[in-house]
Amino acid sequence: MRKPQAVLFDVFGTLVDWRGSVSAGLAAFGAAQGLAADWLGITDAWRGAYKPAMNAVRTGALAWTNLDDLHRGALVELLPKFGVPGLADAQIDELVGLWHRLTPWPDSVAGLNALKSQVVIGSLSNGHVALQVALAKHTKFPWDMIFGADMFGHYKPDHEVYLGACKFLGLAPGQVMLAASHNEDLAAARALGMQTGFIAGPMEFGTPDERARPNQDWEVVADSVVDLAAKLR
Amino acid sequence: MRKPQAVLFDVFGTLVDWRGSVSAGLAAFGAAQGLAADWLGITDAWRGAYKPAMNAVRTGALAWTNLDDLHRGALVELLPKFGVPGLADAQIDELVGLWHRLTPWPDSVAGLNALKSQVVIGSLSNGHVALQVALAKHTKFPWDMIFGADMFGHYKPDHEVYLGACKFLGLAPGQVMLAASHNEDLAAARALGMQTGFIAGPMEFGTPDERARPNQDWEVVADSVVDLAAKLR
Repeated sequence: MRKPQAVLFDVFGTLVDWRGSVSAGLAAFGAAQGLAADWLGITDAWRGAYKPAMNAVRTGALAWTNLDDLHRGALVELLPKFGVPGLADAQIDELVGLWHRLTPWPDSVAGLNALKSQVVIGSLSNGHVALQVALAKHTKFPWDMIFGADMFGHYKPDHEVYLGACKFLGLAPGQVMLAASHNEDLAAARALGMQTGFIAGPMEFGTPDERARPNQDWEVVADSVVDLAAKLR
Repeated sequence: MRKPQAVLFDVFGTLVDWRGSVSAGLAAFGAAQGLAADWLGITDAWRGAYKPAMNAVRTGALAWTNLDDLHRGALVELLPKFGVPGLADAQIDELVGLWHRLTPWPDSVAGLNALKSQVVIGSLSNGHVALQVALAKHTKFPWDMIFGADMFGHYKPDHEVYLGACKFLGLAPGQVMLAASHNEDLAAARALGMQTGFIAGPMEFGTPDERARPNQDWEVVADSVVDLAAKLR
């Protein structure tokens, strides 16, 4: 393995605990409003609506729509199913904004800083630029560059996203590593010639499951971002 | 004036001393190669070739070409006029790379850090993403977001650049300030509804001249980036 010149990161699940953050935010909203509901169930259903909505964009069934708008549409649909009465638009917006203020895994910031001293680090997320700028402000992720899906008008795993980021960096895919906790994201990157780093540590879905184990011989398999930085040094 | 939610910066001249940096880099190259030439004159001629080359792209006479390639073409043309014999491609590339390693004005980093604690800060430069990522690594500019001309396929003062950056940030033009030492850059931003901040301090061309004085009532006129941050606080 040649040392990559840039490492690009998946964000949701790989670097931040979306499930813990969003469910806590929903529960706090419910408490303030005097609403009781299965907030963790709503969180999982909300995230579950993510892939079908993105796929509608990826197949062209839906024109380009950013993640805020996909989140908004999904939430409005699923809340009544969970017995939560119609909320005002401003309340929906407030909840959509929870995805801009997610909590990092404990070692994400330290790991990114350790990597930043070695190589270019960037995000490569299905979040749009505005969401990611807000999230980086909130988390203190020290990005050299943010790549958002709206820069490409495509969602991962469309190849335009991976190859577009490499092109912006002026690097060949083989000079760039994608780091992610999701095998399918890494598989898409590898198919395009990128290097791959699997981060096995986070328990994105609350309990260890097979999604948290590597299913290919990725160039690097690490327990955490700090471990990835150490293995690339 | 409402406080902007984001401040975007012109880079060349506003935040970095391209003239001092490039001429020093050329002189060092010359000394290493045993070549004598008017390196400051070459620097000024090189920068002088910048606007016509960009304008060829802006008018469509030339397909999208990034700043490295514009710099390369201009340098190859002008070196013989300054009595510098044909250089190897690798040497030309090395000199083009000088624009990735420019020295900031003394207060640029401190000023950007002071602003970053208040608002989103980003670059809005005719440099492409790869150049700007390298330059930010070199200078330690703490960008929340880098906006490069290649994200838009246009050069300033084309409106696509200014409005495209606002759109990526999810902000209306009136919520965003352009900060620059160049009146014409600010005039283009103001015409699109952006706020404007003039930074009068740097002596980009080596001596104080009228280009270093505001020629409109910009929302903020500051002596330096540190002063701009203080005036926005």
